[in-house]
Amino acid sequence: MNRYHVAILGATGMVGQEMLATLLERNFPAERITLLASERSVGRTLTCKGRTFTVELACPEAFEGVDVVLASAGGSVSAVLAPEAVKRGALVIDNTSHFRMDPRVPLVIPEINPEALEGHHGIIANPNCSTAILLMALAPLRRRFAIERVLVSTYQSVSGAGKEAVDELRAQTSARLRGEDLAPSALSKPIAFNVIPQIDSFLESGYTKEEMKFTHETRKILGQPELRISGTCVRVPVEVGHAMTVNVEFDRAVSPDDVRGTLATAPGVRLMDDPRASIYPQPTDAAGIDEVLVGRIRGDVSHPHAINFWVVGDNLRKGAALNAVQIAEELDRRGLLGVRRHAVAADPQS
Amino acid sequence: MNRYHVAILGATGMVGQEMLATLLERNFPAERITLLASERSVGRTLTCKGRTFTVELACPEAFEGVDVVLASAGGSVSAVLAPEAVKRGALVIDNTSHFRMDPRVPLVIPEINPEALEGHHGIIANPNCSTAILLMALAPLRRRFAIERVLVSTYQSVSGAGKEAVDELRAQTSARLRGEDLAPSALSKPIAFNVIPQIDSFLESGYTKEEMKFTHETRKILGQPELRISGTCVRVPVEVGHAMTVNVEFDRAVSPDDVRGTLATAPGVRLMDDPRASIYPQPTDAAGIDEVLVGRIRGDVSHPHAINFWVVGDNLRKGAALNAVQIAEELDRRGLLGVRRHAVAADPQS
Repeated sequence: MNRYHVAILGATGMVGQEMLATLLERNFPAERITLLASERSVGRTLTCKGRTFTVELACPEAFEGVDVVLASAGGSVSAVLAPEAVKRGALVIDNTSHFRMDPRVPLVIPEINPEALEGHHGIIANPNCSTAILLMALAPLRRRFAIERVLVSTYQSVSGAGKEAVDELRAQTSARLRGEDLAPSALSKPIAFNVIPQIDSFLESGYTKEEMKFTHETRKILGQPELRISGTCVRVPVEVGHAMTVNVEFDRAVSPDDVRGTLATAPGVRLMDDPRASIYPQPTDAAGIDEVLVGRIRGDVSHPHAINFWVVGDNLRKGAALNAVQIAEELDRRGLLGVRRHAVAADPQS
Repeated sequence: MNRYHVAILGATGMVGQEMLATLLERNFPAERITLLASERSVGRTLTCKGRTFTVELACPEAFEGVDVVLASAGGSVSAVLAPEAVKRGALVIDNTSHFRMDPRVPLVIPEINPEALEGHHGIIANPNCSTAILLMALAPLRRRFAIERVLVSTYQSVSGAGKEAVDELRAQTSARLRGEDLAPSALSKPIAFNVIPQIDSFLESGYTKEEMKFTHETRKILGQPELRISGTCVRVPVEVGHAMTVNVEFDRAVSPDDVRGTLATAPGVRLMDDPRASIYPQPTDAAGIDEVLVGRIRGDVSHPHAINFWVVGDNLRKGAALNAVQIAEELDRRGLLGVRRHAVAADPQS
């Protein structure tokens, strides 16, 4: 078995730490794991699954000898450092939005479009958390049935905005319970006992960037550039776990049982759909697990060809770290990992 | 000016107390206000706007001499006591779902279908909280444009489930912040830092009753029994204020500015729609005010005839107490209040 040198860029963030835990949990064939972060975290130690790691500086030289970089330090960091890593022969799996829509960059969910990895040029993009969770349920349906239109409303947890946002949710909630206010700083508005219909900044069209990521990334991953898909993204006072209502219009009548049958065998998906027993997924069910959970599957009284369902996933796992590690595993399976480093080492001009 | 004897049935509940506050705030022409509740609250005193009231027993005899009853003590209480009140000449404005779909019972939002009051038989139904808030925005649009289909996802606060649910949210949240769990009792699942995709019980179709109230009540109020409208109702950890994403498909292209122009002059609606300045409504904006707030108005990249928007309202006010008091005001304006009591007094057999 090949054993690789893995680097995690942005190792002190919530996703970075989840990446480390996921690599160790899944026994990824890593010979060495290097944690990289900005200057203020250098020297900090992180302990995970009984192993202790020391954070090193994220700089171009840090990628010498690295086979694969899992990057989650923000788009502007990836913009600068991902090409540096690639130049040194590493493959970069980037969790930021920076390269996702670049036509030369594969955007991959391994259960859905692993073949896209073959055409990589050194950088592979990990989808947005909501896109990944939605597509785990949507892609298996689309493989069996033709989809006409998809409408989504999200209920996104604050961990999607980082550790400071989670701390803010807790501190602000605690303050509210004492009858006090704590001004927001990590989030744009107070989130305690509130919901905020804005994630990321606004575009001219009135959509947010987060909402359009959803549309564009889904089209790219499914290879369906004209797919009609629209959503509204809303932040809710939940720590971990993104949920969404999904309305899918097919080109013909598809029964709830057809949907259940399809999703029951879909990899990485678990049905939790027994309304009679009040069984349906919630963020608290999805937090900390790998599977994406689907429930509330039913017809649509407003359209004979449409189906409603509710999907929930851990935004830090399938929505980020797990998917990135699964990409690395798939690259390994395909013999695509470690190749470039050796090529670059043999011919530094390549 | 006529002065009426008003009774509030279920006066100790969240909606009941809001009804009392609303009557006093709006100077409803009440000569007398009687607070009625179940045995365990009898003798309790409630103070509101500097006036003190003593709770009396909700029993058939309590309605003698009452002109109008605002009822919010649960469907089973209304089922028994509303006919008793009507028998004694009172008019009942019922906030429960019990009579809403009865074809003999007008279901009224005064800004939208006040004329329906004319055909009453003693009982008038107040719509479900989400329906009322949604229709404040939807009805003005439907007056100007033909609507083909409406899809809604709700973000409903726990006050919709009563005072015990709000107490549970606070206590459970406080417990979670200390790392402890507090089992749910007022709600079906833990609500602290969670969202629950179930409100009310499930129907055979997989929809909840709450979701179908929405569909049926909207059709009845708009007088459009075939209207294609579907929704998913979700409880969120918010104390007061229901929010929803709304996707409306018209029979032709309608621009966001057409929608803004229409809603800018709609009674009881306030636009909060300036994404460039991060202005959009949140539950914390809507709690405690009468207007329903609308923002996030934009086209729909998935359909050339569709529009997305976001509407938020105080579920205790426009979603319940305010609408009920507005119905009483409209009945007064139309000379329909106080009439029956005097008729019954003159001819007890009528």
